[in-house]
Amino acid sequence: MNHLPSSFEALIHSLSQLPGIGKKTAMRLAMHIVDHKKNVIPEFLSSLEQVDAQLTNCTVCGNYADDAVCTICRNPKRRTGVVCVVESVKDLIAIEETGQFSGSYHVLGGLISPIDGIGPDDLRIDQLLNRIKGEEITELIMAISSTIEGDTTLYYISQQVHDDVSVSSIARGVAFGGELEYADDFTLGRAILRRTPIDQLFNGDR
Amino acid sequence: MNHLPSSFEALIHSLSQLPGIGKKTAMRLAMHIVDHKKNVIPEFLSSLEQVDAQLTNCTVCGNYADDAVCTICRNPKRRTGVVCVVESVKDLIAIEETGQFSGSYHVLGGLISPIDGIGPDDLRIDQLLNRIKGEEITELIMAISSTIEGDTTLYYISQQVHDDVSVSSIARGVAFGGELEYADDFTLGRAILRRTPIDQLFNGDR
Ligand SMILES: [Zn+2]
Ligand SMILES: [Zn+2]
Repeated sequence: MNHLPSSFEALIHSLSQLPGIGKKTAMRLAMHIVDHKKNVIPEFLSSLEQVDAQLTNCTVCGNYADDAVCTICRNPKRRTGVVCVVESVKDLIAIEETGQFSGSYHVLGGLISPIDGIGPDDLRIDQLLNRIKGEEITELIMAISSTIEGDTTLYYISQQVHDDVSVSSIARGVAFGGELEYADDFTLGRAILRRTPIDQLFNGDR
Repeated sequence: MNHLPSSFEALIHSLSQLPGIGKKTAMRLAMHIVDHKKNVIPEFLSSLEQVDAQLTNCTVCGNYADDAVCTICRNPKRRTGVVCVVESVKDLIAIEETGQFSGSYHVLGGLISPIDGIGPDDLRIDQLLNRIKGEEITELIMAISSTIEGDTTLYYISQQVHDDVSVSSIARGVAFGGELEYADDFTLGRAILRRTPIDQLFNGDR
């Protein structure tokens, strides 16, 4: 498209790098940005700069944080002793939005997947085991997608944990083989309430 | 969502200001940006800064331009004497993509709409009339949406132009009452080839 100025082409290119944004949509978004330059660009620049400079992962749980420790880990109103283990911040946010959980989280940063060369050491599993000791955690709620990788990770962690820690999985109301992030708030909320003890999960009706 | 760091909230807010981007999509896009920070943010910042600092409207035709005159107006291979008149840069780009037009453009910056308080003086109509004299323009192709505002604008301009300038409208292959930007490339291309002289349009089979 040599009829477009290069600054505009560059903006279209940046936008079309985002997931689900095709060429046409990127152009539409870029035009909106150009046509509302004064309102849109300063805010956009400042939010990107803030994220670039400040946003990091919580040193305790792996959640997004502007400081060393995230707002959830710092919140004295959250129940201690109960940790919800998730694959990603995406899943943490999805669970927070259900309003059904008031403990803390642990973000693994992925799932065990031998095919993709992802082993336990590539995830925040050691940090989780250390937290269990240090924070006197008595319950782990595993909110992990029910895929092969999810079940592998679930099983691996349950084997690493002492018997005095109760380990459960969120109820399999989450569609089988489905990615957690696509579950609706209600299903996800119920799945937390009806979580299944891990021994029933692997020895039971599956 | 007090569980999200403020820099991340700010990014979600910036993204959700864009047209067609709801809260959920904005969050998904923001997560992608965060998770690919090093690859995505520098390019994004630089393209937004470029657009902010450089992008303006061509002083001749109103197209987007990084300089005073746009790449189309500067291109010596474009046919002189024929001007395609459009409402917005969006429509200019749509017509360029059809590859059916090799003259220059004139972007009005809107359409006459008494209800919205938009009169001829709010648009780049004077500049168009000046160009007709200065550039010895012999043909105007009006590529304007076939809405009430579009027809009003078309008629107004046709009345302002001397008889020695031929004024045509792109063929009404564009859906009636439809916005030009939603026409597919093929329809839009044909509509330019089969343009109708303006006197036939207003006295003819309508
Ligand atoms: Zn944390
Ligand atoms: Zn121009």
